[in-house]
Amino acid sequence: MAHAPLKASDDCKLEILHKHSAFIFDLDGTIWKGTQLIPGASEVLNLLRYQGKRIFFVTNNSTLSRKAFLQKCIGLGLKVNIDEIYNSAYAAAAYLKTKNFQKKVYVIGERGIIEEMHSVGLEAVGGPDDADAKVDYSKGDPYMEVDEEVGAVVVGWDRNINYYKLQYGLTCLLENQDCLFIATNTDARSPLSTNQEWVGGGAMVGALIGASELDPIVVGKPASFLLDVICRTSGLSCSQICVVGDRLDTDILWGNKNGCGTLLVLSGVTSEASMLDSDNKIYPSYFIDSIGDLLSVKEKLSYCTVS
Amino acid sequence: MAHAPLKASDDCKLEILHKHSAFIFDLDGTIWKGTQLIPGASEVLNLLRYQGKRIFFVTNNSTLSRKAFLQKCIGLGLKVNIDEIYNSAYAAAAYLKTKNFQKKVYVIGERGIIEEMHSVGLEAVGGPDDADAKVDYSKGDPYMEVDEEVGAVVVGWDRNINYYKLQYGLTCLLENQDCLFIATNTDARSPLSTNQEWVGGGAMVGALIGASELDPIVVGKPASFLLDVICRTSGLSCSQICVVGDRLDTDILWGNKNGCGTLLVLSGVTSEASMLDSDNKIYPSYFIDSIGDLLSVKEKLSYCTVS
Repeated sequence: MAHAPLKASDDCKLEILHKHSAFIFDLDGTIWKGTQLIPGASEVLNLLRYQGKRIFFVTNNSTLSRKAFLQKCIGLGLKVNIDEIYNSAYAAAAYLKTKNFQKKVYVIGERGIIEEMHSVGLEAVGGPDDADAKVDYSKGDPYMEVDEEVGAVVVGWDRNINYYKLQYGLTCLLENQDCLFIATNTDARSPLSTNQEWVGGGAMVGALIGASELDPIVVGKPASFLLDVICRTSGLSCSQICVVGDRLDTDILWGNKNGCGTLLVLSGVTSEASMLDSDNKIYPSYFIDSIGDLLSVKEKLSYCTVS
Repeated sequence: MAHAPLKASDDCKLEILHKHSAFIFDLDGTIWKGTQLIPGASEVLNLLRYQGKRIFFVTNNSTLSRKAFLQKCIGLGLKVNIDEIYNSAYAAAAYLKTKNFQKKVYVIGERGIIEEMHSVGLEAVGGPDDADAKVDYSKGDPYMEVDEEVGAVVVGWDRNINYYKLQYGLTCLLENQDCLFIATNTDARSPLSTNQEWVGGGAMVGALIGASELDPIVVGKPASFLLDVICRTSGLSCSQICVVGDRLDTDILWGNKNGCGTLLVLSGVTSEASMLDSDNKIYPSYFIDSIGDLLSVKEKLSYCTVS
C-alpha cells in the first residue's frame, strides 16, 4: 500500500461492517489493557453478534491457556466461547498435532504453553518447573543431560528465563534427532505494563536463535498458521474476515498478507505518529482510536440490516 | 577464497613463520582447553619469542578481566605480559574510551566486563550484582526505574541471565538518551565444556536484540576494533600479522577480512569436516591439527635465522 490509511469515517465503518462476515480481534491493547476493558468493547462485540457476525480472538500472548483467557474474558463481562479464543500457546500445540507429533516438548515459556500441550495430549517438561533450575558447575566440565524423548523445543515469553533453560533447549536442538524449534511468537515487547515498554517473547526466541544459529518455526502472528486454522474450522475465507488489532508488525501485517481487511486501533502499542512515520511500511485498511468508536454507527447499522 | 586450504606442510609452516612479524593467538581451543594447556603451546610461544616475533592473545571471552587471564596464563606456565592480552570485555571498555564516554555502563555479563570498565575509570552497574534481581510484580503495573546516568548497555556471556537484567537493559536503551548498545561478541557457543556445546554470549545479545529490535555495536572478533587497537599501539600493519585460532566465524573471518594471514588449529571448535563442508565459505590460509605442530620446523627455523 503506497499511501497512509484514512481514519475511518462512519461511512468507512459501515463499509467494514457490511463487507466482512467475521472479525478477529487481538486482545491486549484492543479489547483490554492489563485488567481494564477498553470502553465500548463489550457493546461492540454484542452489536456484531446481533448482526450475525462470527467473532474470534487471536493473541500472541502465550503465558495463559485458552481456558485462562476465557476466564479473563468472562471476568471482564464479555460473552465469549472458548472456541472463539486462539493464542500462540494453543497455536504451538495445534501445529504439533498437524505434524502428528507424539514426542515430548521442552518449554521455555510459562504455564500457558504447558497447559495447551497437555490439552492436546502431549507431554511437556520445563517451563515453570525450571524457573529456579541451575547448572551444576561443581564438576570441571559441566554436562547437560536431556531427555532423549524431547522432539520439540517451544519458546515463548518467559519471565523466568535463565541459563539452564537456554542450555537445555539448545542441547535438545543439537543432540536430539530432528528436534523442532518452535516460537510461539517473536513480539519484541510484552503487554506486562500499560505505561512502559517491557521485554516480550522476542527476547527468549532471540536468545535461542543466538545460541543455536537456527531459525524457528513461528506459529503466532504474523505467521499465517492460526488464520489457516480459523478458516479451515469455520469455512470462512480470508477475504470475509477483518482483523482488528493494535500492532502493525503482528496484527495488521498478518491480516494484510493473508488478504483480510485490517483495522488498526490506536488504544495499544501503535500510535498514529508511528503509523505515519516514514520508516513504517505496514498500513491497515483503516484506523480508529479505539474499538468503542465503532459504536458511532450503531443506529445506522441496525437500520441498514432491518431495511 | 575459492578452494579449500591445505594442511600446512613444513615448508608452509616455515613460510608462515618467516612471512609474519607478529602472531595473534586465540586462547580457548587454541592455547588451552578448559584448564589444560594444549601440548606444545608453551614451547611454540617461546620459539616465536626467540625468533623476535611479537605475540598477542585475543579472546572473545568476556567473563574474566585481562588481569585474570594473565593469572591463568601464568598458572599454566606461560610467559605472558598483560599488554599482550586483549579480550572482548577490554574491547568494550577501550571502545567507550575512544568515544570519550564518561557516563555509567549497565552490564549484562560477568565480572570481567565490570572489572575492565573500572580499569578505564568508568562506573559499571548490574552484572553479577543483578544475578538474583527480580521484578516487583506486586503492583499491578510494574515499572522499571533505571539510572538516568547509564549511557551504554554492554552485553556479553552471562550465566546468570534473567528477565530483570534484560528489562533493565531494554529500558536504558529505550529511555536514556543516546544510550549505546554494545555487544562484547556474538559467539553462539561458549568454552564452558570441552565435550558438549554450551550457550555462548550470542544468546544474551540475541535476547536484547529480540526485545529492542536494535543492532548492537560488536567489539569482539570478527569486528575489526581490536585489530585496529593492536596495530595502532604496536605499529604493525595487518599484513605483518598471522591470526591463529580454532573458529572459522570469529578468528579466521577476522583475520581474512583484515588482510592478515590465518592459520586454523583443529584443537577447538572447528573440525576438518566442518571446514570442508560445502556450506562453509570461510577458509584459513592454512590449517594444522594443533599449535604444537609448529614445533616440527623448530630445527629448520633456528638454522634459517642463524644462517
